[in-house]
Amino acid sequence: MTHAFDQALQLRTLQQDPQGGRYAGQTHAAWDNMVGPYGGILAAIAVHGAQQHPAVLGQPLALTVNYAGPAAAGVWELQIRLARTNRSTQHWTFELGQTEAGGAPNVVLTGTLMSGLRRPTWGGTDMPMPDVPPPEALAPPQDPISIGWRDRYDLRRAGGGLPAEWTQVETAAAPEAASLDQMWLRDADARPLDFAALAAACDIFYPRVWQRRGGHTPAGTVSMTVYFHADALALQAVGNAFVLAQARAQEYRGGFFDQTAQLWARDGTMLATTHQLVYYKS
Amino acid sequence: MTHAFDQALQLRTLQQDPQGGRYAGQTHAAWDNMVGPYGGILAAIAVHGAQQHPAVLGQPLALTVNYAGPAAAGVWELQIRLARTNRSTQHWTFELGQTEAGGAPNVVLTGTLMSGLRRPTWGGTDMPMPDVPPPEALAPPQDPISIGWRDRYDLRRAGGGLPAEWTQVETAAAPEAASLDQMWLRDADARPLDFAALAAACDIFYPRVWQRRGGHTPAGTVSMTVYFHADALALQAVGNAFVLAQARAQEYRGGFFDQTAQLWARDGTMLATTHQLVYYKS
Repeated sequence: MTHAFDQALQLRTLQQDPQGGRYAGQTHAAWDNMVGPYGGILAAIAVHGAQQHPAVLGQPLALTVNYAGPAAAGVWELQIRLARTNRSTQHWTFELGQTEAGGAPNVVLTGTLMSGLRRPTWGGTDMPMPDVPPPEALAPPQDPISIGWRDRYDLRRAGGGLPAEWTQVETAAAPEAASLDQMWLRDADARPLDFAALAAACDIFYPRVWQRRGGHTPAGTVSMTVYFHADALALQAVGNAFVLAQARAQEYRGGFFDQTAQLWARDGTMLATTHQLVYYKS
Repeated sequence: MTHAFDQALQLRTLQQDPQGGRYAGQTHAAWDNMVGPYGGILAAIAVHGAQQHPAVLGQPLALTVNYAGPAAAGVWELQIRLARTNRSTQHWTFELGQTEAGGAPNVVLTGTLMSGLRRPTWGGTDMPMPDVPPPEALAPPQDPISIGWRDRYDLRRAGGGLPAEWTQVETAAAPEAASLDQMWLRDADARPLDFAALAAACDIFYPRVWQRRGGHTPAGTVSMTVYFHADALALQAVGNAFVLAQARAQEYRGGFFDQTAQLWARDGTMLATTHQLVYYKS
């Protein structure tokens, strides 16, 4: 039976040419969020859409998805376009939309994807994986909220995270820990990690303002960027093993906050760094 | 006389309708980089292009620019498109290109801009401004390299940064300081800070790999994202005063590294957080 993740990514080609294409798919209840689909699955659909195009060069390097509006349960259309191909890099743009019966198309997602060829060269890290206990020694997060798509993941609380009950009290933690969230994650239903799944996992964190303020308020990602540091071989090496995901907020102001996050393989290999701007009420 | 920054942003409307427009402009020698224009000025052109459109809603919130290819000295064309307008947010896409004589258009820049209305609400920071000496007590960076556009800024070295001479030796600093760069900056030729200028300033840092490795190697930003935390009032309050800019790299691998950075007003107000993926040879 096809994995729920791959079911959600299934595309039917409506039109395709060397410069892009249009593809149809439909929302999948296993990935429902509070309103519409989990943002991570929409990001994965965009990555998958570009990757399956015959003209794709290399592997994903940089992804930005903007969540322009909610998606209703049902059919969507993904449009991808190849803006430029260089010797070793390539630039795609995409848009995902839905058409109401008899109405104009609603844009759900806009974004860009850069892909390319990596070269063997000097490498290093200025952001080493933090020292946390192994996932086998840790329990799943005890969150005061449960949202459907979260069950798609096997999660282990490694540091920070939501309080077990809403306190409605602002955390007294120092700035560097006030919104810090550290989790081991893997697919609950085993599936080898790939670029689309890594993009999806980058959206794993609950809105940091919930942790910071100890309360459940309306919040949702409006833009997410992912920089892929892993190549296909590094992802293959992970397979379905646990990955460490760490996030913290930087600034909350005027109804928007941002988050900076990292995902590492268990051996300390950086897989992706990712950032979000998140709408919130408080 | 018009400021060199505003000269570089001058647009001539080729076509405009409620869903977007096409505008012509030209590269400006004051903003030359090693190859083509400074990436920051291209980001500023995109922000300005959307902001001057009659349909714009609110102020810039999130910007992603992808540097798809080099721009030659001369004329360029900016195309902007309004993908979706919500009650309080709006999503734009843009592309900047150049057409060779008798040839097809070359895409130089792709990207997205989200704008919107901020609301008075609870705010806070998890990334306070670091404690550094005031700019008046500090000297300009003593860099082993000089690039034209850098002279557009009055810079003061506050921490980290390039060595005064290329050492060709990898830094022995701890990971959190190995690529840390802290600078006060303001326009050398006074001009009030606005969204376009803030976007440009987000690209102020030399490639972090130069600092990390003590050597000058080919490197260039391929994608940059900016989250604007300041509103127009906060920018007005800055005027032409110094702004603190801080950056550090996270991961260098396979010819691409990423950078995470913050810009604060002198009173500690976060103005923007920003991230880049940068191509490098080493």
